[in-house]
Amino acid sequence: MSVTAAAGFLAAGVPAGLKSTGRSDVALVRNVGPLQNAATVFTSNRCLANPVLWSKEVIKDGTVSAIVLNSGGANCYTGAQGFQTTHATAERVAELLDISAGDVLVCSTGLIGEQLDLAKVTAGVTDAAAALAGTPAGGQSAAEAIMTTDTVAKQAVRTSPAGWTIGGMAKGAGMLAPGLATMLVVITTDAVLPSAELDQALRSATAVTFDRLDSDGCMSTNDTVALLGSGASGVTPDLTEFTAALTEVCQSLAEQLQGDAEGASHDIAIHVENAASESDAVEVGRAVARNNLFKAAIFGNDPNWGRVLAAVGTTAAEFDPYDIDVWFNGVRVCAAGQPDQPRELVDLTPRAVDIRIDVKVGPARATILTNDLTHDYVHENSAYAS
Amino acid sequence: MSVTAAAGFLAAGVPAGLKSTGRSDVALVRNVGPLQNAATVFTSNRCLANPVLWSKEVIKDGTVSAIVLNSGGANCYTGAQGFQTTHATAERVAELLDISAGDVLVCSTGLIGEQLDLAKVTAGVTDAAAALAGTPAGGQSAAEAIMTTDTVAKQAVRTSPAGWTIGGMAKGAGMLAPGLATMLVVITTDAVLPSAELDQALRSATAVTFDRLDSDGCMSTNDTVALLGSGASGVTPDLTEFTAALTEVCQSLAEQLQGDAEGASHDIAIHVENAASESDAVEVGRAVARNNLFKAAIFGNDPNWGRVLAAVGTTAAEFDPYDIDVWFNGVRVCAAGQPDQPRELVDLTPRAVDIRIDVKVGPARATILTNDLTHDYVHENSAYAS
Repeated sequence: MSVTAAAGFLAAGVPAGLKSTGRSDVALVRNVGPLQNAATVFTSNRCLANPVLWSKEVIKDGTVSAIVLNSGGANCYTGAQGFQTTHATAERVAELLDISAGDVLVCSTGLIGEQLDLAKVTAGVTDAAAALAGTPAGGQSAAEAIMTTDTVAKQAVRTSPAGWTIGGMAKGAGMLAPGLATMLVVITTDAVLPSAELDQALRSATAVTFDRLDSDGCMSTNDTVALLGSGASGVTPDLTEFTAALTEVCQSLAEQLQGDAEGASHDIAIHVENAASESDAVEVGRAVARNNLFKAAIFGNDPNWGRVLAAVGTTAAEFDPYDIDVWFNGVRVCAAGQPDQPRELVDLTPRAVDIRIDVKVGPARATILTNDLTHDYVHENSAYAS
Repeated sequence: MSVTAAAGFLAAGVPAGLKSTGRSDVALVRNVGPLQNAATVFTSNRCLANPVLWSKEVIKDGTVSAIVLNSGGANCYTGAQGFQTTHATAERVAELLDISAGDVLVCSTGLIGEQLDLAKVTAGVTDAAAALAGTPAGGQSAAEAIMTTDTVAKQAVRTSPAGWTIGGMAKGAGMLAPGLATMLVVITTDAVLPSAELDQALRSATAVTFDRLDSDGCMSTNDTVALLGSGASGVTPDLTEFTAALTEVCQSLAEQLQGDAEGASHDIAIHVENAASESDAVEVGRAVARNNLFKAAIFGNDPNWGRVLAAVGTTAAEFDPYDIDVWFNGVRVCAAGQPDQPRELVDLTPRAVDIRIDVKVGPARATILTNDLTHDYVHENSAYAS
């Protein structure tokens, strides 16, 4: 289902020959209305891929009729020719669907610095437009066409008793900013909401989901999250309820991304508790999530809490360095900055790892999701070519 | 030679049973004067090991008569008992050498969160004091006793025609702040300089050497660089000449640390040119040096310049994202943000890799040294137990 779960949306994914494997690599999602409202969140990287430069213009009026996505090439650092490829792709979509090119978002993912083959892209777009369907199969084929190193398609759906639905698809093995590999997310809804409220809900949801998934500290030039609203349910939702459901969809997609991160053998949740502020909690959690020594230790099933504290100590967050408690999978291995329970009691063999860090200064908390640093991560990223 | 190259210094390294391997693990360096001047630079981590807490007090009056170092345990997050171990170690050194414990620096390196065996440490200190010698062998044995995952002892010496000498030893596979593993450096000189000038020279030298070695972005709780001055040459140096020689010693030690970094297969120098300021150049270089995707690509001999630009784009430095040139080992693969020479022309098989990034906005430059991200790095740091 995913992007076709909500009424008013058609989708398709087709092979266009951009991937050397011959797998599908062009996806198209069309919003048939009655509304064409939309909101987006883009990477905060200053080096932006051509499709991001294009899409930032498209979203300015809050109107989006379709989104086209390709894997097999990032179209980043490809200069004027690359921008022209993005533009021509949007024009081709517009022509086929009888809409304005200025209402077509474009997303790309793959290697930076190589030109996309425009003839292949436009042929793929033509095939995708012909295959558009509001069926679960349509949504599934779109979700598959955006995969790169993903091993499974990622989709999530929430339906409200009030009569509206939110559905989404995602690709990538990282996060919005930063990201292990480019993260692309398309979410659709048939709720009746103006673009400004879609934007408000989307920023609220991504701030506590994709923004707290930090697989390897790297930030892509192409990351895009788009939320399209068709209004086809005819129901105007309570914005709080809508935001909560949207956050659930984003959280589910974020966890699916974490679970499929390149080469990972552990999914790590870092819970920071009793921080002075939420931003302090995020800063502490992110510092641990980005520490290669900590991440390698988890790969080795080693509850090396010294590496947690050494990472915490690099932050400017408020805490007493000698009054911090640390738990690994429920075992308090460090209390008030001293050894507590024996590290032998910790079992790190399950894929899921919970780290709890109590900094004991305030009421705030946050959870950061990350992965371990493994042989396979190094292998996949030293041999990356898709 | 190293720490015994300058007149007025004795050194020794002995096995005390702290390392499970039985290798030497306690080093002692004594300054027999006539001066006991000194300066130090410590980690900027807020979580400080007990020996760093102790040594920060010792250095306040600028007088240091001896420095004692142990491998086999970091004595960090070991609470009051750990601090007492550090204190007792200094007291034992003072008793044996008939000096004040308040003039004894202490350094430790190894696993965080485990108590050091004080009986073993004091027995080792006793043996080391008995073995103190102003010979090359004395310096060599001290350099060997501070090794952890190091595969070779690191030493460097510079002698001025004016008649004074600087010698140093280092351990670790990273940097002052941050550091892959704890970096400990002891440098001695027989030049006649007050502690304030030693401090000025040391901060100047470390800022452009150890502070620009960023092997894996991690910062230790124990990093210490100490410079001891005996004045035994009787020669007061020109401070500029002294600082230049000290910088050479630090640069040599930094390059030796880089060349022996845990699991590394490439030594990478990232040269950032034509930046608006030196701090901008350092920020850009450091962002690239810490990017796991870039580091894994170098391991795979892949000149993936897109990852360089994606890392540069995460900084706040002044530049036009679409007017940057990038060279890999002398081949300009990206010009003005577009593909230039074919990446096939780049040969990344040598251990030494030069990345040149021209941001084209100003007169400043900086070089950051780092290593690649390898299978062996993950292996060593997932199985770390020394």
